This record gives sequence, C-alpha cells and structure tokens, in this order.
Amino acid sequence: MASNRGVAYIKPGVVEIQHIDFPELAIGNRKCDHGVILKIVSTNICGSDQHMVRGRTTAPEGLILGHEITGEVIEVGRDVEFINVGDIVSVPFNIACGRCRNCKEGKTGICLNVNPARPGAAYGYVDMGGWVGGQAEYVMVPYADFNLLKFPDKDQAMEKIRDLTLLSDIFPTGYHGAVTAGVGPGSTVYIAGAGPVGLASAVSAHLLGAAVVIVGDMIPERLEQARSFGCETVDLRKDATLEEQIAEILGINEVDSAVDCVGFEAKGHGNCSHIEQPATVLNSVMSITRAGGAIGIPGLYVTGDPGGVDENAKIGNLGIRIGLGWAKSHSFHTGQCPVMKYHRQLMQAILYEKVHIAKAVNVQTISLDQAPNGYDDFDKGAAKKYVIDPHGMIV
Amino acid sequence: MASNRGVAYIKPGVVEIQHIDFPELAIGNRKCDHGVILKIVSTNICGSDQHMVRGRTTAPEGLILGHEITGEVIEVGRDVEFINVGDIVSVPFNIACGRCRNCKEGKTGICLNVNPARPGAAYGYVDMGGWVGGQAEYVMVPYADFNLLKFPDKDQAMEKIRDLTLLSDIFPTGYHGAVTAGVGPGSTVYIAGAGPVGLASAVSAHLLGAAVVIVGDMIPERLEQARSFGCETVDLRKDATLEEQIAEILGINEVDSAVDCVGFEAKGHGNCSHIEQPATVLNSVMSITRAGGAIGIPGLYVTGDPGGVDENAKIGNLGIRIGLGWAKSHSFHTGQCPVMKYHRQLMQAILYEKVHIAKAVNVQTISLDQAPNGYDDFDKGAAKKYVIDPHGMIV
Amino acid sequence: MASNRGVAYIKPGVVEIQHIDFPELAIGNRKCDHGVILKIVSTNICGSDQHMVRGRTTAPEGLILGHEITGEVIEVGRDVEFINVGDIVSVPFNIACGRCRNCKEGKTGICLNVNPARPGAAYGYVDMGGWVGGQAEYVMVPYADFNLLKFPDKDQAMEKIRDLTLLSDIFPTGYHGAVTAGVGPGSTVYIAGAGPVGLASAVSAHLLGAAVVIVGDMIPERLEQARSFGCETVDLRKDATLEEQIAEILGINEVDSAVDCVGFEAKGHGNCSHIEQPATVLNSVMSITRAGGAIGIPGLYVTGDPGGVDENAKIGNLGIRIGLGWAKSHSFHTGQCPVMKYHRQLMQAILYEKVHIAKAVNVQTISLDQAPNGYDDFDKGAAKKYVIDPHGMIV
Amino acid sequence: MASNRGVAYIKPGVVEIQHIDFPELAIGNRKCDHGVILKIVSTNICGSDQHMVRGRTTAPEGLILGHEITGEVIEVGRDVEFINVGDIVSVPFNIACGRCRNCKEGKTGICLNVNPARPGAAYGYVDMGGWVGGQAEYVMVPYADFNLLKFPDKDQAMEKIRDLTLLSDIFPTGYHGAVTAGVGPGSTVYIAGAGPVGLASAVSAHLLGAAVVIVGDMIPERLEQARSFGCETVDLRKDATLEEQIAEILGINEVDSAVDCVGFEAKGHGNCSHIEQPATVLNSVMSITRAGGAIGIPGLYVTGDPGGVDENAKIGNLGIRIGLGWAKSHSFHTGQCPVMKYHRQLMQAILYEKVHIAKAVNVQTISLDQAPNGYDDFDKGAAKKYVIDPHGMIV
Repeated sequence: MASNRGVAYIKPGVVEIQHIDFPELAIGNRKCDHGVILKIVSTNICGSDQHMVRGRTTAPEGLILGHEITGEVIEVGRDVEFINVGDIVSVPFNIACGRCRNCKEGKTGICLNVNPARPGAAYGYVDMGGWVGGQAEYVMVPYADFNLLKFPDKDQAMEKIRDLTLLSDIFPTGYHGAVTAGVGPGSTVYIAGAGPVGLASAVSAHLLGAAVVIVGDMIPERLEQARSFGCETVDLRKDATLEEQIAEILGINEVDSAVDCVGFEAKGHGNCSHIEQPATVLNSVMSITRAGGAIGIPGLYVTGDPGGVDENAKIGNLGIRIGLGWAKSHSFHTGQCPVMKYHRQLMQAILYEKVHIAKAVNVQTISLDQAPNGYDDFDKGAAKKYVIDPHGMIV
Repeated sequence: MASNRGVAYIKPGVVEIQHIDFPELAIGNRKCDHGVILKIVSTNICGSDQHMVRGRTTAPEGLILGHEITGEVIEVGRDVEFINVGDIVSVPFNIACGRCRNCKEGKTGICLNVNPARPGAAYGYVDMGGWVGGQAEYVMVPYADFNLLKFPDKDQAMEKIRDLTLLSDIFPTGYHGAVTAGVGPGSTVYIAGAGPVGLASAVSAHLLGAAVVIVGDMIPERLEQARSFGCETVDLRKDATLEEQIAEILGINEVDSAVDCVGFEAKGHGNCSHIEQPATVLNSVMSITRAGGAIGIPGLYVTGDPGGVDENAKIGNLGIRIGLGWAKSHSFHTGQCPVMKYHRQLMQAILYEKVHIAKAVNVQTISLDQAPNGYDDFDKGAAKKYVIDPHGMIV
Repeated sequence: MASNRGVAYIKPGVVEIQHIDFPELAIGNRKCDHGVILKIVSTNICGSDQHMVRGRTTAPEGLILGHEITGEVIEVGRDVEFINVGDIVSVPFNIACGRCRNCKEGKTGICLNVNPARPGAAYGYVDMGGWVGGQAEYVMVPYADFNLLKFPDKDQAMEKIRDLTLLSDIFPTGYHGAVTAGVGPGSTVYIAGAGPVGLASAVSAHLLGAAVVIVGDMIPERLEQARSFGCETVDLRKDATLEEQIAEILGINEVDSAVDCVGFEAKGHGNCSHIEQPATVLNSVMSITRAGGAIGIPGLYVTGDPGGVDENAKIGNLGIRIGLGWAKSHSFHTGQCPVMKYHRQLMQAILYEKVHIAKAVNVQTISLDQAPNGYDDFDKGAAKKYVIDPHGMIV
Repeated sequence: MASNRGVAYIKPGVVEIQHIDFPELAIGNRKCDHGVILKIVSTNICGSDQHMVRGRTTAPEGLILGHEITGEVIEVGRDVEFINVGDIVSVPFNIACGRCRNCKEGKTGICLNVNPARPGAAYGYVDMGGWVGGQAEYVMVPYADFNLLKFPDKDQAMEKIRDLTLLSDIFPTGYHGAVTAGVGPGSTVYIAGAGPVGLASAVSAHLLGAAVVIVGDMIPERLEQARSFGCETVDLRKDATLEEQIAEILGINEVDSAVDCVGFEAKGHGNCSHIEQPATVLNSVMSITRAGGAIGIPGLYVTGDPGGVDENAKIGNLGIRIGLGWAKSHSFHTGQCPVMKYHRQLMQAILYEKVHIAKAVNVQTISLDQAPNGYDDFDKGAAKKYVIDPHGMIV
C-alpha cells in the first residue's frame, strides 16, 4: 500500500504516469489531523486540465493533475469525527477549511485559508494552492469532515459510481451555471459548449424544469450527444447566425437564460471557427439573452494566459460588449462553482434516478495507464468524459 | 393653461427654452385614455441628460429633455381609475405598460410595449421611445394608474418636495446600485462617483445599514459633499492608488460591495485623470471588491457612442478584466433601475425622515429659464443637483 | 349569442344549471372598458367549490360557481390593448387590478381593488368580491390586459386544452405549495392529500426536480393515481403511523419539505379517519418535516366555518402544535396562490411537454348539463378532475 | 486559575452562585481538541433563562445557567487553527459542529451533531444537549474555529464590550426576527414585547431601514426605553385595542411586518393583562399585519410546559387563528436564531457606530455575586439588560 502512481504534467502536450509519494496526513511539515487518505475509486479528466496541458497556464513540470476525485477512506486523521474508514466519498474539487467567513457563507470556491496566494484552492491545479492532484491511486484530503460527501450505501454507490463520480466537479459546475443563469421551470435556455460541462449544464437545466434546452457547439459528435437526451442544438460552424438558428427552434431569437460553458479558449463562430476569439461566447450570449435575463459563466476566464491572442488577452482583459448587456439589464455570474452548495441534492437526484448524468456526458472509464491517451482524445474533441479507474474497481 | 414651455436640446453644448405644444392625452394619433396630464411641480436635470448635451449620443435637435418628473394631476384619461385630479405624484423615469411579461415581473425598466425599438423607454431621451420630456411646464404620462406614485398628503408632499423630487430617478437608481451590489447591515461599500447618483447611492448604502461607505471622485467639492453625511472619501487624483486609499480607511484593501455610478464617460485615475478610459471604473472596482462580492452598475454603458475613444468604444465594446472578476467569483448587475420596485419604500423613508436625500445631494432649485445655466454648471462638476421649479411652486 | 347558462349553488348538496344573463362589459352600473367577454372553452370543478356546496360557507343561494376558466375572447373593452378577439386565454382565478401595491409586488392573490370586503377576489366564490362565476357558457373578465395569459397558437392550444385548462388554478396552486415548501432538485417531499391540488403539487414537485415525492391520502383510487406518475404513497387509514410509513420509504422518518393540500376539512388518520380534525394535517406535517424545513399550505383555512367541529373551529381558530414547529425552526406559508406569478412558465412546461398534468390528475371532460353529477362524484372522492366543456369544443 | 464559580439553578425562583469545576477540553470522557477555554469577559442574563427559573421547564437542579458569552481565550485545543490565546471572542449561543448538513446550510441553530435528543444545542439550557453554561468565570467552547467570532482589536473590543456582549444572542435574535418578518427600507413594523429581545429587534428594524417601528408592551418603563431611541409605542394595558393604537400612529391599522418577541408566556391585552394567554401575541399580530406580510417569531414556543394554562398548552398546542393568517396570505417564521448568520455584520455595525445597542436595551453590568438579584429584578420587569462581569474587567 506504500506505493502510489499519478498523472504528471510534463510540458505542453505531454502528460505521463509517474511513481509518486504515498500521501501522508500532512501539509508540508505540519501534521494534518483533520485529513483523510483516500484510495481513489474514480478520478476524471476535466476540460480545465486541458488548459494546463495545452500550455495555456504556468503549470510547473511534474505537477500531479486531477481535481475530480471519488474515493474510499483508508485512514482518518485524529480530529476527524464523522467520516470513517470504509466510507465511499465524493471530494469537491474546491478545497475549503469550513471555518473562514467565505466557507461559513457557503462560498467554498473562495475559501480564505487554503491558498496563500488568493482565495480558493483545488487539487492538482496551477495557482490553486499547490495541493497534490488526484489522478492517482491515493490522495490526501484535508478538512475531511467538512469537505467530504459520504454516500449512504456502499454497494449502491459502486453500482452508480459512473454517475456519482461526476459530483466532484462537472455536474455541480454545470448546475451552478444554470442556477446562476436563473433557469427554472418553463425556461428557455441556451448552453454554449457541448463538452462535459456544457452537457452537465444541459442536464441540470432539464432537472431544473426548463422547457427547452438548446446547446451550441462546433463538433457534430458533441451535438449528437446533446440531442441524445432531449436537447435542441445549434451548429456554430453553419452560416446561419446563432440568433437565426435559435429563432428557427423557438420562433423568437431570444432565450430566457444563457450559460457560457466554454471560457477563454473560445473560437469564432461561422467561418471564423478556426480563430480564437476569447470573448466571442460572452458577446454572443448577450445578443440572444432576453432583456432582464441572467448569464451564468462557469466557463473559465483567467488572469494570466501565456498563449493569449494579444497583450490584453494575456492578462485576461477582453473586449466585451458591456453596452449591449447594460441596455438589456443583464446580470453576469462568474467564478468557480462552490460544489458543496449542490452536491448533496444532486447525489439524491442520481440515487433516486431523476437524472442519468453519466449517459448524458458519455462516461468512458479507462485505466490510469490509459490517462495520457484520454487527454489526447479529449483534446481532439471526443464526445466523451474520461473517468480514470486506477484500481480496476468499476465494473 | 394652453401654453407650454420646455428645455430643448439644440446641439452639443446647447440647450434652450422653447415654446412647445401643450400635452394631450394621445400617443401620436391614438387617444391615450390611460394617461394623465401633469402640471410639473419639479423636474430635475440628470447626469444622463449630459451625455446627450455633450454630443455623446445621436439625440435629434429639438428633443425636449427631462425624465425626472414630479407633478400635480390636472387631467385624467377616461380609463384612469385610481389617480385623481389634484393628486401630487412622482413619475418613474421608466415608462411602463404594466401589462407585459417584464412589467409583471417587476422589470419596468425594460417594458416590452412602450418602445418599438427595444425594451425600455423614458421621457425625453434618445433611443428610448420618442416620448416628450418633462423639463417643461406640463407633460403627459401614460398608463397613469400603473406608473404613478401618489403622495399620501398634499401639504406634506409640498413640504418635503425637495426630497420627494428625487424619487423619479436618482434615489431609486442609486439604491438599485447598492441593492444589486449586495449592500446590507454591516457592509463595507465603495461607491465610484460622487455626482448625484453616486451620492444617492451612498445615502442608500447608509439606509441599508452599511458600516462604512467610501466614495471616490476627482472633484473636491463633490467629495466634501459626501463627507457631509458621514461617508469616507477617496480622491482619485492622488498618487496613492484606490487600493492604498481604501486600505488606509479600512485596514484592508477590499470592500464587500462596489457600485459603479460613473459609466462609460469615465476618466483615468491618478495622473491619467484627463484621459477618458471608459472601462476604468469597472476594472478598478473589481480590484477592490472582495472575492464573492457583487458589483452594481447603475452608471450608463451604451451601445453607440459617437465620441468614443476608439472604434470598439464607439459600439460599447470595452476592454474588461473579466479574468480578474472570474477569479474573484464576482457578479455584475447592469441596466436601468426599475424605479417602481423601490419608490414607495423610499418615499416612506423620506416621509418618516429616515433619510435626508436632498441635503445629501445638495438640491438647488432653479427656474425653467435658468435650466441652461444649470446644465452648464452641472457639466463643470458643480456639487449640486439642479431641480427645475417651472411654476415657482417650491418655497 | 345573447343566451347564457351557468352552474348555480342552490343549497347544501344541490347545484343546478340555470339560464343566466349574458355577461356585459360592466361592473354593477359602471362600464368596464378594461374587460373582455369570453366564450368559455373549459371550466373546471374545484375542490374549494365543494366547501360551498357542502354548506361549509355562507354562500348565497343562486351564486353562479366557477373560478377555473379558459376561454376564447369574443369581445374586448375599449381600453384593452394587447388582447384581441379570437385569442384563447387562461384566466387566473384571482381577479387582480394590476395597479395596486400588492399587484405591483406580484401578490395578485390579495389585490386591494377588486373586493371591497378584504384583499383578494375570485370568480364565483363566497366572500371573494361578488364576481359572477365561470362554470357557464360566457363570462366577463376585468383588467383583461393584466389578468389574461394568451396561448401563443390557437390550434396548439386546443390540442393541449386538457392540460392548459389546469393553468387557471390547480396547477399553479399545487406548484405554489411546492415552491413555498422549498422543493428543489434532490428534495424529499411529502404531499398531504391526493385530490387534484395534491396531485398537481406532486407533479410540480417532480418538475422542480424532487428526488422522491410521497403522497398521503385515505382514498385508494387517488393514491393509485399518484403512483401512476412515479409518486410513492402513504395510506392514512393504515395502523402504521405517517412517520413509520415514511421511514419505510426513505429509511428515515423525515422529509425536506411538506405541502398541505387538504385544508380545514381534514379528517383524522388511522382509526380516526371518520372524524373531522381540522388541524390534523398541519400538526402531522410538522412531525415529519425535518428541522429547518418549510411547509407550504395551499389547502384552504377559513375565518368562518358554520360546520366547524367546535366554537373555535367555527372562527378558524385551531389547536396547532406551534411548540413543535418552533423547536424545528419551521416556516409556514399560507394563502391563495398568486396564479400570475407562475402560469406563463407552467404553460411553457406544458407546451414543450415537460409535464403531463391532465393525465396526472385524471381529467375527465363533461358537458355543462353533467356538472351536477360531476360535483356529486367528486364529493364522493372520485379520483378525477372534472372539466366542463360548455360548447362541446374539446375533442 | 483552577477555581471556577457559576450561577446554578436550584429550584423555581432560586438561583445561586456555586463553586464548580474548572472547564476542561473534554466532552464527557472524550478529549475535545477542537475546543477552547475562555476566561469570561461578560455573560448576560437572558429572558429565556427566566423560563427555567420560573419553573416553566424541566430544568434539573444544579444546572449551570448562561448561554450569552463573550470571553478571552486562555487555552486552545490541539486542532484549533485560527483562534489563538489572547483573542477576545463572541460565542454564539447555539453550539454547532460546522460539519453537518444543517451547519453547511447556515442553519447553526439546528446542528445535527451536538445534541443527541434533537437538532440544536445551547450552553446551560434544559433539553439543549447538556452543555455547561457560561454565567461563570470560565467555560469551554467546542468547535472553536467554527463557532467563535474574533474581534479584530482587543482594546477596541473592551471599549465597546457593553455593545459587543449582545452579539452572542439578543442582537442577532432580534435581528433575525426582523429579517424573517421581511423588514427593509421604508417598512412599517410592529414589535411585540419591549424586553431586551424586543428592543434589540426594534434597533434591528431601524438598522434595516424601517420607516416606523412600533413597540408594544405592558410595562411603562420598557416602553419608555423604546421611545428613547426613536420608536413609537403601544401600551397594551390601555382600553384602546392594538389596531386602534396603531391606526393612531400610522393613519391605518396595519403594518408591513410584525415580530413576536414574547413567546408562550404571553399575557392577555387590555383588561386581561393579568391572565396568561399563550397564543395572544401570535393572534394579535395577524390582525395588524397587512395581507401578504410576514411574521417573525423569535419569541420561544415550547414542546413541553409544566405550567401551561391547560392540557394543550402543556404540550405546546395553542389555539391559533390560522384561518385569519391564511386569508391574509401570511407567512410565519419560527425557531432559534442562527447567530452565526448575522454576528459578523452586526459586529461591524457596532464597531463603526451605526448602532448603539447597549444603550437601547439599557445594559447594566453586575458582578457574578449580584446575578441572583439580577434574575430577580429582571423577572419583575426591570427595563434593563443585566450583563455579568465575573472578573471585573468592564470599566
């Protein structure tokens, strides 16, 4: 049990499996008595990992990746009271202390105590506090009583693990986008992006009672995936504008709510689809969101982007049609999803079979050794969500 | 009673008093039985009028200005049921039908029925539906039962008219900025801009229970005005940055909430204070708003600005540090204030003397003939709110 | 077209079809230019009508019943702007002026201008303002621009009329109960009562994303109906207590949210099921709602009940275990549903086939002449929702 | 330092100062590494303590009383990270783990882990988990990182300690009542009860921007206290009804919001003021709250009351005019205040001198030995809030 292996970022375009230290209940030199050690049951590759692997961040060589973690508790720190060895748990990707002002307000995505550089931390992510990632066999999770969501029944958890594994990030993240966009029963919704977060947001919009969910992307397979669970779709490579395509579906060229599940690596629409236009999604969703509507922005925008299209983009300063948004009284909701705000309810929705999120995002399980291929295929636009099964526990 | 005079926009920098038609209960050729005719008791010059007068819009020559109107009802249309001749009423600057989806949702700033060009209308304003303005002796108000706020007692109303006149726009607008920025008991707040809307927002923040209200501007007299009712101030012409000045006041360089009461004609800070930098306020408030905070944006951003600093600014596309806002999980709240959502409560606060808004924004009454001078002085940065008293009714 | 017939309340247990006046655009002697005349397409018998017909109110002889109305506009008043002859419209059962403080706040169930006796009015209901009911061939609707919800397409409306007819009352009413009880994605919910409102509340809870919806009643056919669309059920005639039956379903004896869809004519549980115990539902839902939960109360409680079990019950004063609710930090939400707050969104949910409400509540169409039988069967506990089709327009 | 003294409940009407154990970082036999030991700076006598001392509960002989605690940290458990020896801290009266579902939702008043009998715990209170009270020289506080509010500056804290001491219970409790009653800028508010919680609720209503705050009681000195900071008052011993007295103040006989700060030991109004009528406050606030208003109920209602006026009252079952509340669409909000939700903001309001809560509730400091007298005087209706200063630290 003393051995461990994980997915390491090496350089742009390259990740590899390395032997790494077995986790300890420690943060640096200090003991971490509030933490637990997990044997990882499943750990997913995330679209935001791709930003690092594509070289769009300052991620250091050797960083162990992975912030979407589900595991079995194999050791608990002395101060842990309510989590026990043997529990199967979901780990929110945001690390949170449970004791600062932000955590007490439910804003666990911007905890003040777990990242010396800025509010908010995550496992295995550049600039997010230096925590070791969980695309590995084992990982340490701090503040375990606060952070972890325990599944009520172990057998049931393993049976539904392909769905439950999505509670650590993309299901809550997509849901947060829909919630902050004001989606509710009867809403018409536009979701920009049919990657896993976009599809999770579309599932969430349906769960929230939306009347029509329209998903836009440029990859036919991803749009096909969206249609498979009842969404309408917009192909952004077409000549018809976004507004025109929406009008064709709804009879009018506006929706009640929009969610940007793409972020700063957005590409242009129509015949600009090969050109990066980092604000294109934000600007286009303003044009098709009705006056008074809200725009959820779970898609990542960064403060530093070495690969930005110009000097402004390199510091996260983008040309935004704020005049249009203002004229339409839009509100804009940004930031990391505070997973803990939602994961218990979404777990219930999974356990009682109100949603089939794994099918919607097309979960494909792979071994740890297949992770580099998974990164590669995902980067090429595979309409799949790769879930690493490091111990071969998933049937 | 058949004569009428009003303030007309002539060309950049020039307004004049003209004889104009006496209002009728009509919209174009159609009868307007739901309207009333008001004898105007008071009508204020607004900072947003200045955008037109400075030539920063496409306002046509001859436009009768004025959207901040308080009046006495002298004629009621046949379909008006609950407003009577003799009532003293406050007119929300947003014209609203009370019958469309947005009005029913309380979003009267973006009514769907009163402006063929886009949601939302106002009196005497370019691109806002072509309604005749109220810097005049008389004006017609449609959908009177829905739009008007009747003051409960006529004598009391005339006694407090200098305060009540601010209910038509700037008090609710400043309040809306504070509310959407999440201000509440104990908040620390930064208000960008010490013009009348900024000061009204500061008064509102105090009314909402804020612990500390900090107001920033470049005009010493306006900052002095802010200090007169208990605000802290930041002089943006100083070398010390905004963050540094806030840290000096609070001990930390962040506030809970920020309100942009400046809008697109913003100038740079420090030694850039002579240069227009349209996004400077938005970007600076992100830097000093704590992670998880909200930003209220009652300051106007436009879709077309002939005097914009560059091609992007001319279409309302500004360089915004969205990466920074995203990292801090900020939310942004834009658009015209839906006055009706707030004016009754704020009237109560005035009538029961919880607030002294007229004193805070330094109301100065002038005659209709003095209006051109009022525009001039206001444009030069006078720390005053000019209230036109067309019939000499205000003592 | 000048003839009209309607369902009249005669005396306890007796309703009959009478020839009545054809409606005019008038309220008493005053013209009602804001009104329209509807040819009624469908009009439903409501559980709350039964309170009158059972003699549990002071309803006067000859009262024309009916507040659940859908119709085709055949005449519009002079002041109506946005509704046209030929439109098919849903009529909220609450009559609202659209111009008072409460209407502006969205509280159309307690409009201040349409009932001289107290806030709130309805068609064909005792103490609700004296408006003529709509279980008839034709009816007059005031403030038509404000009140009416127009269906976007006439053919589509007639196709889905069995669902859309439920927008005038029970679908929004059941939905309001679920919303005020805090139901959302992942909730566990208990609905007291499997009559039409209870079933509509159960459908609503599903639409809102609830994980488990449990419905309790004493009539097996109604419980069967609840199971037909995925609800769990509790048979209150059983010896096992409500808590025990819930524990059997959920593993714990508490739910997140509860909705009282029964009201003051409640009967005891278990072997008290033949005895009226007017507070039994309120008290039992407190015992099974988790600490911190909310309780929605769309079921009617009245201020005067001639048939009350004792002197207190006759004035609406019931023995409530407030100490228990307080210990659990419960909140309680009462009152008429403000239909307008919800009907547009629920219409969208119907039109886009997110819900099949007619099937869930088991709509059965009958002719006007069959209405007395409908009342009778419904009173006996038929697991049906009777929809009167006075012109034979429904296929 | 190893000695300790505290206020013990002996029997109805009798408390006495006893030598008690010095607190340890332990819960029963288990170590409590997440706790701290406080030297108590101030600890207040609460109206809810009186319920016990009057013999209206099953409090056991020897119970050490006191749940309103402010102290200086003199020892920290091994697992405490963010609280240090020397910190001056406010202790919320609700004990909360910070790790259960309710705590994560901000519902710290009904924590699931600190009281085996039911959700929610408090120091020194019957049926609230068996925790030792803090009307003593020293006390142990568990889950210190989560529970405690640290004052930013020690000297400033001691200077304002008479205000800050009220953050542990009555200021947040009164504020919670006002917030749940929907009080905001411009509201008219009725507060039932001018004891310390009622006065704190009145201060809170002012802080929230209320236009008029009316306080009702039967003790002239308490009403005088309310008038001292700008409240209107209603003397309930008068013949004029509550409605009449409110109409005299406001011109109408209704308020927007009402707060019940009395609870189950309420007495009748007018010439019934010597008779206990446990539901009289609830029923009277319904009659004077406008349709659509909310009613906050911080006043305590219990599940067991040995001294109840009848068999129903003894189990917390009271005769409530639910029919009236329903007709007016009221909502009712009960339960212990979750202090943590509010104490930081209210501390800010104190530190920046937005409120002067100590003066409003008339704080009187006494020594530990004077506590029995304080209980006595408070029970007789003294218009004072007794604050015990066990170490003579308050100037």
